[in-house]
Amino acid sequence: MPILPIDSGRYGSNEIRKIFEEENRLRYQLNFEAQVALSQGKLRMIPLKASREIARIARSNKITTAKIKELESISEHDTASLVQAISEYCSPTTRPWIHYGLTSNDVVDTSTSMQLKDAFKVIEPKIFKLISLLINRVRKYDLLPSVGRTHGQHASIISFGLKFAIWANELSYHIERIEEGKKRFLLCKTLGVVGTGSLMGSKALDVQDKVAKTLGLYSIEAATQVIPRERLAEVQFIISLIGSSLDKMATEIRNLQRTEIGEVEEPFKKGQLGSSAVPVKRNPIKSERISSLARILRSFSNIAQENISLWHERDLSNSANERFTIPMGIILLDEMINNMIRVIEGLTVSSQRIIDNINKTKGRIFAEFILEALVKKGIPRMKAYESIQRVAFETLVDDRDFRDAIMKDPSIGEHLNKNELKTIFDPNTHLAASSRIIKNVIKRTEQIRKNYKPH
Amino acid sequence: MPILPIDSGRYGSNEIRKIFEEENRLRYQLNFEAQVALSQGKLRMIPLKASREIARIARSNKITTAKIKELESISEHDTASLVQAISEYCSPTTRPWIHYGLTSNDVVDTSTSMQLKDAFKVIEPKIFKLISLLINRVRKYDLLPSVGRTHGQHASIISFGLKFAIWANELSYHIERIEEGKKRFLLCKTLGVVGTGSLMGSKALDVQDKVAKTLGLYSIEAATQVIPRERLAEVQFIISLIGSSLDKMATEIRNLQRTEIGEVEEPFKKGQLGSSAVPVKRNPIKSERISSLARILRSFSNIAQENISLWHERDLSNSANERFTIPMGIILLDEMINNMIRVIEGLTVSSQRIIDNINKTKGRIFAEFILEALVKKGIPRMKAYESIQRVAFETLVDDRDFRDAIMKDPSIGEHLNKNELKTIFDPNTHLAASSRIIKNVIKRTEQIRKNYKPH
Amino acid sequence: MPILPIDSGRYGSNEIRKIFEEENRLRYQLNFEAQVALSQGKLRMIPLKASREIARIARSNKITTAKIKELESISEHDTASLVQAISEYCSPTTRPWIHYGLTSNDVVDTSTSMQLKDAFKVIEPKIFKLISLLINRVRKYDLLPSVGRTHGQHASIISFGLKFAIWANELSYHIERIEEGKKRFLLCKTLGVVGTGSLMGSKALDVQDKVAKTLGLYSIEAATQVIPRERLAEVQFIISLIGSSLDKMATEIRNLQRTEIGEVEEPFKKGQLGSSAVPVKRNPIKSERISSLARILRSFSNIAQENISLWHERDLSNSANERFTIPMGIILLDEMINNMIRVIEGLTVSSQRIIDNINKTKGRIFAEFILEALVKKGIPRMKAYESIQRVAFETLVDDRDFRDAIMKDPSIGEHLNKNELKTIFDPNTHLAASSRIIKNVIKRTEQIRKNYKPH
Amino acid sequence: MPILPIDSGRYGSNEIRKIFEEENRLRYQLNFEAQVALSQGKLRMIPLKASREIARIARSNKITTAKIKELESISEHDTASLVQAISEYCSPTTRPWIHYGLTSNDVVDTSTSMQLKDAFKVIEPKIFKLISLLINRVRKYDLLPSVGRTHGQHASIISFGLKFAIWANELSYHIERIEEGKKRFLLCKTLGVVGTGSLMGSKALDVQDKVAKTLGLYSIEAATQVIPRERLAEVQFIISLIGSSLDKMATEIRNLQRTEIGEVEEPFKKGQLGSSAVPVKRNPIKSERISSLARILRSFSNIAQENISLWHERDLSNSANERFTIPMGIILLDEMINNMIRVIEGLTVSSQRIIDNINKTKGRIFAEFILEALVKKGIPRMKAYESIQRVAFETLVDDRDFRDAIMKDPSIGEHLNKNELKTIFDPNTHLAASSRIIKNVIKRTEQIRKNYKPH
Repeated sequence: MPILPIDSGRYGSNEIRKIFEEENRLRYQLNFEAQVALSQGKLRMIPLKASREIARIARSNKITTAKIKELESISEHDTASLVQAISEYCSPTTRPWIHYGLTSNDVVDTSTSMQLKDAFKVIEPKIFKLISLLINRVRKYDLLPSVGRTHGQHASIISFGLKFAIWANELSYHIERIEEGKKRFLLCKTLGVVGTGSLMGSKALDVQDKVAKTLGLYSIEAATQVIPRERLAEVQFIISLIGSSLDKMATEIRNLQRTEIGEVEEPFKKGQLGSSAVPVKRNPIKSERISSLARILRSFSNIAQENISLWHERDLSNSANERFTIPMGIILLDEMINNMIRVIEGLTVSSQRIIDNINKTKGRIFAEFILEALVKKGIPRMKAYESIQRVAFETLVDDRDFRDAIMKDPSIGEHLNKNELKTIFDPNTHLAASSRIIKNVIKRTEQIRKNYKPH
Repeated sequence: MPILPIDSGRYGSNEIRKIFEEENRLRYQLNFEAQVALSQGKLRMIPLKASREIARIARSNKITTAKIKELESISEHDTASLVQAISEYCSPTTRPWIHYGLTSNDVVDTSTSMQLKDAFKVIEPKIFKLISLLINRVRKYDLLPSVGRTHGQHASIISFGLKFAIWANELSYHIERIEEGKKRFLLCKTLGVVGTGSLMGSKALDVQDKVAKTLGLYSIEAATQVIPRERLAEVQFIISLIGSSLDKMATEIRNLQRTEIGEVEEPFKKGQLGSSAVPVKRNPIKSERISSLARILRSFSNIAQENISLWHERDLSNSANERFTIPMGIILLDEMINNMIRVIEGLTVSSQRIIDNINKTKGRIFAEFILEALVKKGIPRMKAYESIQRVAFETLVDDRDFRDAIMKDPSIGEHLNKNELKTIFDPNTHLAASSRIIKNVIKRTEQIRKNYKPH
Repeated sequence: MPILPIDSGRYGSNEIRKIFEEENRLRYQLNFEAQVALSQGKLRMIPLKASREIARIARSNKITTAKIKELESISEHDTASLVQAISEYCSPTTRPWIHYGLTSNDVVDTSTSMQLKDAFKVIEPKIFKLISLLINRVRKYDLLPSVGRTHGQHASIISFGLKFAIWANELSYHIERIEEGKKRFLLCKTLGVVGTGSLMGSKALDVQDKVAKTLGLYSIEAATQVIPRERLAEVQFIISLIGSSLDKMATEIRNLQRTEIGEVEEPFKKGQLGSSAVPVKRNPIKSERISSLARILRSFSNIAQENISLWHERDLSNSANERFTIPMGIILLDEMINNMIRVIEGLTVSSQRIIDNINKTKGRIFAEFILEALVKKGIPRMKAYESIQRVAFETLVDDRDFRDAIMKDPSIGEHLNKNELKTIFDPNTHLAASSRIIKNVIKRTEQIRKNYKPH
Repeated sequence: MPILPIDSGRYGSNEIRKIFEEENRLRYQLNFEAQVALSQGKLRMIPLKASREIARIARSNKITTAKIKELESISEHDTASLVQAISEYCSPTTRPWIHYGLTSNDVVDTSTSMQLKDAFKVIEPKIFKLISLLINRVRKYDLLPSVGRTHGQHASIISFGLKFAIWANELSYHIERIEEGKKRFLLCKTLGVVGTGSLMGSKALDVQDKVAKTLGLYSIEAATQVIPRERLAEVQFIISLIGSSLDKMATEIRNLQRTEIGEVEEPFKKGQLGSSAVPVKRNPIKSERISSLARILRSFSNIAQENISLWHERDLSNSANERFTIPMGIILLDEMINNMIRVIEGLTVSSQRIIDNINKTKGRIFAEFILEALVKKGIPRMKAYESIQRVAFETLVDDRDFRDAIMKDPSIGEHLNKNELKTIFDPNTHLAASSRIIKNVIKRTEQIRKNYKPH
């Protein structure tokens, strides 16, 4: 019976979960053993015939997780069991050359890189998809003025499209981070027990370079028994950082969907229940799920950093936790991106509520612009500030119209004529550089996509 | 195919995993629905007959996770599906009274408490077992002098048994923390949608008190839709704290098992491989696993605290991560305790190496006692300090015997006679208050056990 | 020039900062040395006269931080410098008995306990003050119905006073945690270099018990060179947990102060600027500050747990970070409580907006109660649920009154008469058990205060 | 009186502390105001004369922190006070143009970037210095065979120089990360209240580009009121990651300095005390300090990620904690690097102990090579493995020489002749690819330095 909500199927798409299933993990490891043998064969480090037999057996489906577990129950060592399993199917003359010069962790670390590589082949296109969904929204709401809020308070006017542009831009930086980071964390290691190349002698680096090239990975320059954990800390950080950007987007949607704000609404499936007790509710549950899972990703970023300081040429204190953090990190990120794609794709945007909200403060939202107009007329800033503040707070008490009050206030009204005031109180006036900003962002995201050559 | 190493069976005992399996989680929730109905029936809040029918159906095995998942695929709401499933088996007149006055989260939070309660019934006896294994070691090595190390340097003499006494004492405090904490985190809630008792009116508290009593839980005084998350943060902290104590023990064992120290050795099973490449090694892999998993528990303690600040009467941002952190926290703690029990039970202690290590510095380890002896003879402390330091560093250069050098050094030797020096250089002299400390600890752990009445 | 905003005076009250100032830290340490000497004198472990001289010098103001720093610049060891400084003022015959049998960390750890003890004497009364300010609010808004929100959506009706009651209750549990925890973390240690009592022999525990008693601390049963760090992890956790509860309160206030909600407002000082550019804004900056600082406290809780696993009888890896985390933890908590006291004390509550908000959904907030009424009339729950959901979503489209639509809807209206509907749509009907809950909470907080005897 | 050990002068070099002192922070902010005014003047957005007056006043020393604090005590707003202070010294016609179109946070965020830029000018050369100190060690110990340890157990032979090479390589990647990251986190923002460029209209981006260029920063494409916090999270992560690499190095040194290992020793100043009670000790206190402070940096990486999800166009929940985390992060990193430079510079390496340690297991460390030799002779791996393991464990019991026992063991000795065994038991045989690895690393670090053009 499943226990955790990844194994129960609750979280993660099939395509990403598959990469991390036990059986597939084994396939990656066997493929690595095959590639090492083939490279060693080509370099005449081991007999060519042996190398081919090893590769053939490793790539057959003879070796199963069931077999490995059986052997592991005696040896308490999973990689040793894998080597033993290959061995059982090989001819006696080939056996000495299986896993030649390697240490268990060469298998574990390189196969993790192979999984990560395939995982990013799933993840990156989804990020691009999300970016393009966001850019669609940007184009649609480019010129729609809306309330800009700081400290939870109405502060000024923004283009509603700008929100999406900022998110698209942020995601494009994540692609940049992944792409720049790959050379540091998609690593191949065959340097053996303590990172010296061990039995292979000085050709160890040639084997490693060859295997790395075939697998589309980078050859590590120097390592102990393990790839330095600061490399994995970087990838876990990027995963966590993307998660936190999604959390930011999700939090914005949750806030904009508040009953009192109502500017957007997550898609709501027919038959879906909002609440078991309250029939009228439409809860932003996908966004809430994203915010929730982001906390796990952040906490894993910390574990990955704690794992860096291993003793001497390695201790095992990174191992058990990485069995969770690496697959969970990727799978939950995938879940979060999938959720956000569905949210943005189906997001209902209420232009009416967006406009209504601008008027909610009866003109007070334009205070910044009154201030600047007065200042430009020569009124000292602090004096202008205090006058506007006074009028604002007075109208607040009995909920009067701020526009009227401003016009009637002698210390303000006399300095600004009707036309000036009309312009000030027109939200479309205040989109300022929004269009240029948005154009720049669209251009940048297009550039990023154009430059993207999946590794 | 399993993905994570809990679902693959790698970590966690059967008894603890069972508590958190999907099917059992459902049983806990159904049992809660049954108890609420029965309590409401007794209080004449709902018809007695209906209450009994609900309880009967809920406790039957008709309602399965398969059924729930089917319903959830439409409603996207797991608890609503559970209510619907019960409903399908009840007579129409009973149906209105199912889940009466409750909200989904009453089910989720209270059933989590029920799981935690059962989990601690597994965990606490194991902690007691570990304490008694440690006390056995304490009694055995009570009078064995050994090296005390600070900053990785030989510092002074301790009783080897004192190490185990400190651990036993620390674990006894964890029992204390769990026991004191239970009233705060083993909670029952039936207060409905927004914590007002909702449809049940002022009798809501009576229902809650009744259900709590039957389930052996504590009735929450005040809540929003959810039990305040600061309560769960406490239990996750205690779990993490126990994990960190185990990590401390594990780290000590890993250090004492170093090739150069060799004072202890983890049990090593026949057939077990130390390393796939290096046949002579015996690695402290259980202890390393404990250190590794402790990092996960610590990181979950942080998530649990982030979950505290929910919006208004609740948002869902705690929910998805708790589906992982609560079962994983407990199951991994169980795994760690089981490992430590096996380690302490089978720990090989080499008294010979312990004694050899005392002599490794050829007497320099007794420097503290020389210093004090000189000071008591009236030598100014700084002067005595510098003399001893000088001799120590000189003997270090050509690895001479410090004891000889001290006796021959005019600024020291003349102040201490042969007998005095003999006493100083006898490790048995320096156990000081160890025996009394140990006796106190034994007494305390016995007291804790005697007072323990499993909730 | 100050760098960090504690030393610049930005955060922390004078009374709490004083406890952690360098000079005062020195006083605590000197007082500890004095107490140890006096206790050893009384036990005839050291000459009575010497013990009195040590105490007299230690308590004089002759030994200053300037002096210590001067000595430390040579020895690179702060506690050794303190001992040396006392020594310089003592007569030669007394000198051997200064710091007798102690290790530096006995001074550091016990003086930290002394600081914590005094810090809680400042913190706990402030928590009580905050509780009583909250109880005032509870009493005032006990019967005021308001919107209960889940997932950011209007969900049901609560008593506005209930919010404050939940907070007061939560704070009372923090007092409970501090009080229960004190025996575990307000510790005295005099057991020397490696926790054996070292030079003092078996009487070491008597000295420790005596000093502990005089200083109002608890005597540690067993220790290495240091007090086990799991004890400090507990106090840092409690600090962090209180911080997260304050963060929860602050987040609620920030949300309720949103322009669109407007139910409360932080006090706003005359002359205070809301924003340098936007004169009309009143930002909840105190609450935002609390949320911000809570993150630091949480992160320190993690550091404190990482510190637990020290090597052997100790390493120094806890030391440098504790120089920050202990004073910062307490001082920032004090800052946060002070802010929250000012916020609650001066909080403006708009009963008008609270009532207006109930009506914002034109009756849809009462959907839960319609559902239950229909169910009790015998309508199957899912059928009733779907009818209500349908009407709700229809009225949402053109913003019609839900109450009217419900009455007119044939599948609903016919089952409920006018009086029934009137009751359903009256918010005062739905406070349910709120009053009883509130009474229980008030009683509990009073009990906690009555039982409180400052340690 | 100072409280925290940064303000007391304990941690951080003068050059780095200066950057973050209150007074200097003010200079950075005033310089930003000056640059904005000058750029706006050049673009004819504000009168040229006004722009020059603003710049002149801002760059004079008239505006002090004392003045700002005085104004802030009324306004409770530090940036507003800064603007007001400039204003007081400007002519009335200039005043409207001070801080024109900006929001407070433009000042805060951009001046932080200016500080970070200057900080990396201090930090990066120090990292390079550390790299070259490490490379010196690499060259010196390139051919020195030493024990490679995994799981704390002797595992195989490595070049002692390889340890330093791995560290140098790791540090070179940190330079790469900083350099690649700068375009993402050294940012300039002048886009005003809600990121639209506000009052400056579409020319806002031109101002920003101009200011960015002059200050040597990057112009942010899109922002809310604040620079997205995912940018600061990246820099805090890099800081933390460097800290964790230093922690790894420090931990290795602490381990190698253990009394039982004794391969290296931190420099020990004349007059320095190892321990107040134990005169013979030389504790690796600098390395321990590094390990301790690394925990703070890691915890700040988490805070920075929590800060990402701000509400709408910003809330203030990042602000108060960044006042600590940004300066503390950089200053503590500087402290740690300085310590590590001193440690590596003065590190005593005992080649004798390194060689002795290889022999400590009386030949068992060469087991891996015996295994491979036997396997190549056609012995099945598992059979060979078991034979070697058996001999190893037998010799362990009575501490016999493994080399002798191997030769005498019939199942092994007969397959390997004397010469083969001699080669196997010669540590110099097993440096394998070490030299090539080391050469590659040296080349890479030289390349990194050559490419480095300080921004």
